[in-house]
Amino acid sequence: MKAEFEEERQDNRVILYHLIQTGNGPQIIAFLEKLSPAEIARFITRLGQKDQTRLLELIGPEKSAILISKISGLGAAGIVERISTADAVPIVQEMGSDQQVRILRKLKEDDAELILQDIQPNRAKEIRQLMSYPENTAGGLMITEYLPYTSRLKVHDVLEDLREHGEVYSDYDIQYAYVISDTGKLIGVLRLRDLLLAPKSKPIAEVMIKDPLKVDVSASLQVLRDFFRQYTFLGVPVTDNEGNLVGVVRSYTVREAANKRNNQLFLKFAGIVGGEEARTMPLFKRSSRRLSWLSINIVLNIIAASVIALYQDTLEKAIVLAVFLPIISDMSGCSGNQAVAVSIRELTLGLVRPRELMRVLAKESSIGIINGFVLGCLLAAAALLWKGNLYLGLVVGVSLAANTLVAVSFGGLVPLILRSMRTDPALASGPLLTTITDMCGFFLVLSSGSLLLPKLTG
Amino acid sequence: MKAEFEEERQDNRVILYHLIQTGNGPQIIAFLEKLSPAEIARFITRLGQKDQTRLLELIGPEKSAILISKISGLGAAGIVERISTADAVPIVQEMGSDQQVRILRKLKEDDAELILQDIQPNRAKEIRQLMSYPENTAGGLMITEYLPYTSRLKVHDVLEDLREHGEVYSDYDIQYAYVISDTGKLIGVLRLRDLLLAPKSKPIAEVMIKDPLKVDVSASLQVLRDFFRQYTFLGVPVTDNEGNLVGVVRSYTVREAANKRNNQLFLKFAGIVGGEEARTMPLFKRSSRRLSWLSINIVLNIIAASVIALYQDTLEKAIVLAVFLPIISDMSGCSGNQAVAVSIRELTLGLVRPRELMRVLAKESSIGIINGFVLGCLLAAAALLWKGNLYLGLVVGVSLAANTLVAVSFGGLVPLILRSMRTDPALASGPLLTTITDMCGFFLVLSSGSLLLPKLTG
Repeated sequence: MKAEFEEERQDNRVILYHLIQTGNGPQIIAFLEKLSPAEIARFITRLGQKDQTRLLELIGPEKSAILISKISGLGAAGIVERISTADAVPIVQEMGSDQQVRILRKLKEDDAELILQDIQPNRAKEIRQLMSYPENTAGGLMITEYLPYTSRLKVHDVLEDLREHGEVYSDYDIQYAYVISDTGKLIGVLRLRDLLLAPKSKPIAEVMIKDPLKVDVSASLQVLRDFFRQYTFLGVPVTDNEGNLVGVVRSYTVREAANKRNNQLFLKFAGIVGGEEARTMPLFKRSSRRLSWLSINIVLNIIAASVIALYQDTLEKAIVLAVFLPIISDMSGCSGNQAVAVSIRELTLGLVRPRELMRVLAKESSIGIINGFVLGCLLAAAALLWKGNLYLGLVVGVSLAANTLVAVSFGGLVPLILRSMRTDPALASGPLLTTITDMCGFFLVLSSGSLLLPKLTG
Repeated sequence: MKAEFEEERQDNRVILYHLIQTGNGPQIIAFLEKLSPAEIARFITRLGQKDQTRLLELIGPEKSAILISKISGLGAAGIVERISTADAVPIVQEMGSDQQVRILRKLKEDDAELILQDIQPNRAKEIRQLMSYPENTAGGLMITEYLPYTSRLKVHDVLEDLREHGEVYSDYDIQYAYVISDTGKLIGVLRLRDLLLAPKSKPIAEVMIKDPLKVDVSASLQVLRDFFRQYTFLGVPVTDNEGNLVGVVRSYTVREAANKRNNQLFLKFAGIVGGEEARTMPLFKRSSRRLSWLSINIVLNIIAASVIALYQDTLEKAIVLAVFLPIISDMSGCSGNQAVAVSIRELTLGLVRPRELMRVLAKESSIGIINGFVLGCLLAAAALLWKGNLYLGLVVGVSLAANTLVAVSFGGLVPLILRSMRTDPALASGPLLTTITDMCGFFLVLSSGSLLLPKLTG
């Protein structure tokens, strides 16, 4: 059964390839509709540039826009990056405003500019406006497709309008309509549900929710996350400094953005600069991004290891210590990274604030003492078993215990300190941490080893 | 301004504490309503057990249920864990079914059982049923509060029912109503929007979407993610083997669950067993969870370092190599972890399948060669600068280059292999990787060092 399944997949790829070669657009559309977004992304992103372009041409701009929206976050931008401006323009034009902004942001500035120049001027102006807001803010996440009605209308008028323009509106994601003043100020929100339940002759001003909740156009992702945690709304109106309605942020956009940020956090934590890498990216791009982080790391590593060089004499006499140096370096790194991760997560959720250093220090140092004690005992026991030398056990055990305390405490604090300095903690915490803990660990083992040298070599 | 802000926060905590001590329920409610969920979580989760219990008593079960739902994912379960069954029952009773299941799952089985025994039997039976589904499946994520109508009704009947029960329903998250057969089979979906736009005398069977999209009760989170990536619906009906409607999964629940899983992935990757830790958890729980991972790691580390012990003679003669061992161990770990993270992410998104080992190997080994070459040159240059010995540079440079290739290739593959074996790659990949790369790295440096020993000591 499983083998069959695999075979069928293999066949699918062959079928798609064949359909592209024979130029059968409608069949490609029918074929792709049977697949899940992850499958589509797997197939499409792995096609060569020529075949990708050909496929999009074959299915036409409208279907292409749907296809690309469907695999948003699964390598969609990479596809637009690879096609020509002439091919991209009609596709981008078919997208919703949020999708347009998301895709254009990903492109090089020149490429985005070329596309914008070819888009209908009014629309292009709107997109430029949206792109001028920082990425993870209400302005950067909002859509401009929403339904505004002036406050003088009645329930009946709005229902009429909805019925008349039903088809156009069904492309929108309508759950609310917004009531504005003659000058464009937001004064109320109409839930479609309430509209449905209200007498038709009522003025909408009496059905609407007055003084509606709204967010400022500059509101951060954290604020928006908190908002949708607090209220189960599907969207929130966005207003500018003057209280004018400028857009709507949908709750699912916020959840997707939070998801994306979490993903980036994870990859950054592992040393992927930019928080994004897919294996469909060009080799050189992937390799150089990883290298930019690694090459800083190797310099820090060399600096840390220079501590060992200072103690060459000790090491020469008690060569057995060399066995324990990598263990202490690695274990301290692990212990410290656990604390780093918990701090990064608490910062992201807003459960700890960057200034609460004392709280984190108290919480982490107590763990550092317990875990340091246990790990120190384990390592001391291993040393004792191996060499039968109590002093060796003492040197490596106490060093690991002390260094675990340092690593866990420092690991908990580093992300807070970096955040206070407005630096991204995910990428920089690890290298900073290991440099300090390596230096400290090597120093502890080798200096205490120097002191007890006669006992170690005896 | 900033100082003022800080002071006000400090004051807030004092105010809340004071309100709890004086037993002023209504003022506590008013006070908490001004705060964001993250702030509430920060205040509440840090209260002592006694004050937490007292606060929940003061605001009453209904407000407590809202409060706990609001800080879902921010330490909510910890609060229910800490109060007595008698206090918990009325609060749990006020929650929606998905929230109930989420909270009860978090409790120890005995505690959950005690609460269930005190809940209204019908409701308890429903909750037990929901809890019997695995956590990240449609059954585990669905709600049972939805609106089913039999197919014989007319638009008018449904609107009438909605209008009559408006208040009850407004507690629900209604966007769709579901049309079922007399035996409970799902036969259609009614969008409220369509209901609004349709003539009142039409039978709902003509307005409904026939053969609606649905998911099986056992559908995985990955399938649900894909579903809501593909369709912009707000919810999807869930059916059992016989096609009966058993619940509804809302898109935001799926996005939240995906978010939670990403977060857990991140923490597991850093060695936090269970993927969850908050600094409000008891010290011993936090410390022992971290230790359980660290103590496996230290054993693996000792095994890896035993390679060094085999080469003590070489090391004694060329002590300078000891300086490079931790560098090679650490850098290989970093390079390998980058590949691990990219694989874990691609697996999670469904962009790579566990069996595609050859694809990942090809993609990663080419990066391993480039990055290995660059890092090897850097380390060789550092060795050369330091000691002026070309052979030393050669030994450490070539070793790091070769070991980077091993680490990157193996790092890319490990998560796929673990996933094929139905093991969680996030927690186990790191330790497995570093054990292999440490052993291999130590062996490369020390064996090549042995071969060139006369040149190193010359």
